[in-house]
Amino acid sequence: MTLASGGLPSSHSPVRLAITLGDVAGVGPEVVVRSLDILMRDSAWLRGEIQAVVVGCSRAVEQTARRLGLAREVVALSTPCAAASEMIGVWSPDGRSLADVPPGRAEARAGAAAHDWLRAAARAALAGTVDAIVTAPLSKLGLSLAGISFPGHTEILADECGIEQVAMMLYLPPGAPMVAGHSLSVAHATLHTSLASVPRQLTPQRVLETIELVDRFLRQIGEPGTIGVCALNPHAGEDGLFGDEETRVIAPAVAEARQRGIVVVGPLPADTLLKSAVEGRYHGVVAMYHDQGHIALKLIGFHRAVNVTLGLPIIRTSPSQGTAYDIAGCGLADPSGMISAIETAIQLARTRQKREGAVATTGECSP
Amino acid sequence: MTLASGGLPSSHSPVRLAITLGDVAGVGPEVVVRSLDILMRDSAWLRGEIQAVVVGCSRAVEQTARRLGLAREVVALSTPCAAASEMIGVWSPDGRSLADVPPGRAEARAGAAAHDWLRAAARAALAGTVDAIVTAPLSKLGLSLAGISFPGHTEILADECGIEQVAMMLYLPPGAPMVAGHSLSVAHATLHTSLASVPRQLTPQRVLETIELVDRFLRQIGEPGTIGVCALNPHAGEDGLFGDEETRVIAPAVAEARQRGIVVVGPLPADTLLKSAVEGRYHGVVAMYHDQGHIALKLIGFHRAVNVTLGLPIIRTSPSQGTAYDIAGCGLADPSGMISAIETAIQLARTRQKREGAVATTGECSP
Repeated sequence: MTLASGGLPSSHSPVRLAITLGDVAGVGPEVVVRSLDILMRDSAWLRGEIQAVVVGCSRAVEQTARRLGLAREVVALSTPCAAASEMIGVWSPDGRSLADVPPGRAEARAGAAAHDWLRAAARAALAGTVDAIVTAPLSKLGLSLAGISFPGHTEILADECGIEQVAMMLYLPPGAPMVAGHSLSVAHATLHTSLASVPRQLTPQRVLETIELVDRFLRQIGEPGTIGVCALNPHAGEDGLFGDEETRVIAPAVAEARQRGIVVVGPLPADTLLKSAVEGRYHGVVAMYHDQGHIALKLIGFHRAVNVTLGLPIIRTSPSQGTAYDIAGCGLADPSGMISAIETAIQLARTRQKREGAVATTGECSP
Repeated sequence: MTLASGGLPSSHSPVRLAITLGDVAGVGPEVVVRSLDILMRDSAWLRGEIQAVVVGCSRAVEQTARRLGLAREVVALSTPCAAASEMIGVWSPDGRSLADVPPGRAEARAGAAAHDWLRAAARAALAGTVDAIVTAPLSKLGLSLAGISFPGHTEILADECGIEQVAMMLYLPPGAPMVAGHSLSVAHATLHTSLASVPRQLTPQRVLETIELVDRFLRQIGEPGTIGVCALNPHAGEDGLFGDEETRVIAPAVAEARQRGIVVVGPLPADTLLKSAVEGRYHGVVAMYHDQGHIALKLIGFHRAVNVTLGLPIIRTSPSQGTAYDIAGCGLADPSGMISAIETAIQLARTRQKREGAVATTGECSP
């Protein structure tokens, strides 16, 4: 038993989160502010066992809190460290203000800022100043308008961390209404790429690495279980009648993963596999492309599905929602996905602390 | 008010169904026999308002009924006309016996028989001897072993009817637990083809025709409503960043359909569109490829989703289940999909009778 930063007895170090504001023209500011306002009433937050810093523009956050009618105080910070537990602390790594960006459509300034804040948050995590990062939605069009060629968070983070093989996973925490018993984790072997390019991007190595990332993740969250690997083609290619990627690419990867001791089956037709997974037969699923996994989890997970980037040296989660420009600024955006993302990041950070046998510290810097 | 075949007062002609036995090594015989045994207790069936004939091998049906412990009598028929209402009548168009085929794996004989029975049922429907056909699962591998190059029911039926443009639709009848309010119909612009071939198979014409088929179907079942058209690429291509089929192929088809008076929106990202559809926003969905629609409907429709082939001159439905060789012959197969398929065929046939102002007849032949 050691003393946590708040001076109260705790067996944990505080978990320190950096939460990026995302694209300020989207729903990011709303869902970040609403989520923190709700979560900060929780006793673990009040005791300082969980500490969060928003990475973005403090004026935009303040403006959002006022528009939402929340009394929560917002404070600008000069380092990525948490403010006092009752305040929302915002660290702007570059001091720029985005408060005048109108909500509702992509623009270059918002895209550039979302990109820079994401990299700053990742660097804070790499440096150990924070234990995990949670990211609000950014717009791929906004990035593109700003001349940034990365299509999304996952790819920017891979670049910042100098990692080649990462995988985007959708994680549905235990207790989702339609999923039997446990959590469900769905990782993607390819992601933000045209459907036409998927078959040529799939290699046995890529599928194998994705299986290994899911296996490692399931062990991290303490839920090891069978992994199901989706086929690429309908009916798993129906014995080679509609495509041969099953036998040529996916089956060899599954066989090699088994050789390495992973409990994995497939390739199986995606429609029946995903149904079985939801019924509780699989803890993890490897999807071959974006929509294969997303169609299933968006349907059953409603707003609770969390994105987790696998393969990074840092912990990163995000809600599965997008910028939702059509409702941005209206105060209508549902914060439950962001709340799930923050809670999942806390769970992963605590598991890592336990695994690394960390003792409580007060963090690398003081507020 | 006229007299139906059973001599009881009725405002309808009897609805006459041909139900194919499918691949006898699969679960087809079990689900057909179980479904008929359940449905034949219903008063409309007892009164002869609904009449069914199984197209297949009477010995295989008899053997299945015995194995399932059902007392229902099975009678071999020489024409595709119903037996007495308490019996299961089986018409073998070619007299061949498949009773010795072992359950559980594809073989050429079963594949050839399933194919021939399907064509015979289709011809009976084209001739007006039956009003609709319902098909039990066949195996594409079984077809292939028999030297038949068609990949499935839909393509064989299109060939038999001399039709080029058909679309396979999954129909979830009203009352499914997760779907808000009404039925949900999902049609596919491409179907039994490798994922790699999907982008080059999609043309504006093909997408437009699929939209029109769905629109016509929704009017037929008396549920006209908005149709949502899925994008091909993740995030609908994110404004051209991952693929251009949305602007090049799908949007022109949607614009043309609107010109023709159809209430249709899209292309929209498939994951969010399918979620909105389930929430009740769309009555019909056009998916670009097999798994896009199947992942969603299998998840939410459980065993209730029914396949309907659009664009044929005949009515054809089937359960969404496959041959399920792993449980064939064990008496474990769930008949609810087949029951839904039969009920949907009856609904469609009655709608057509009403539309065509049919008066009651006793059919073109007598049992």
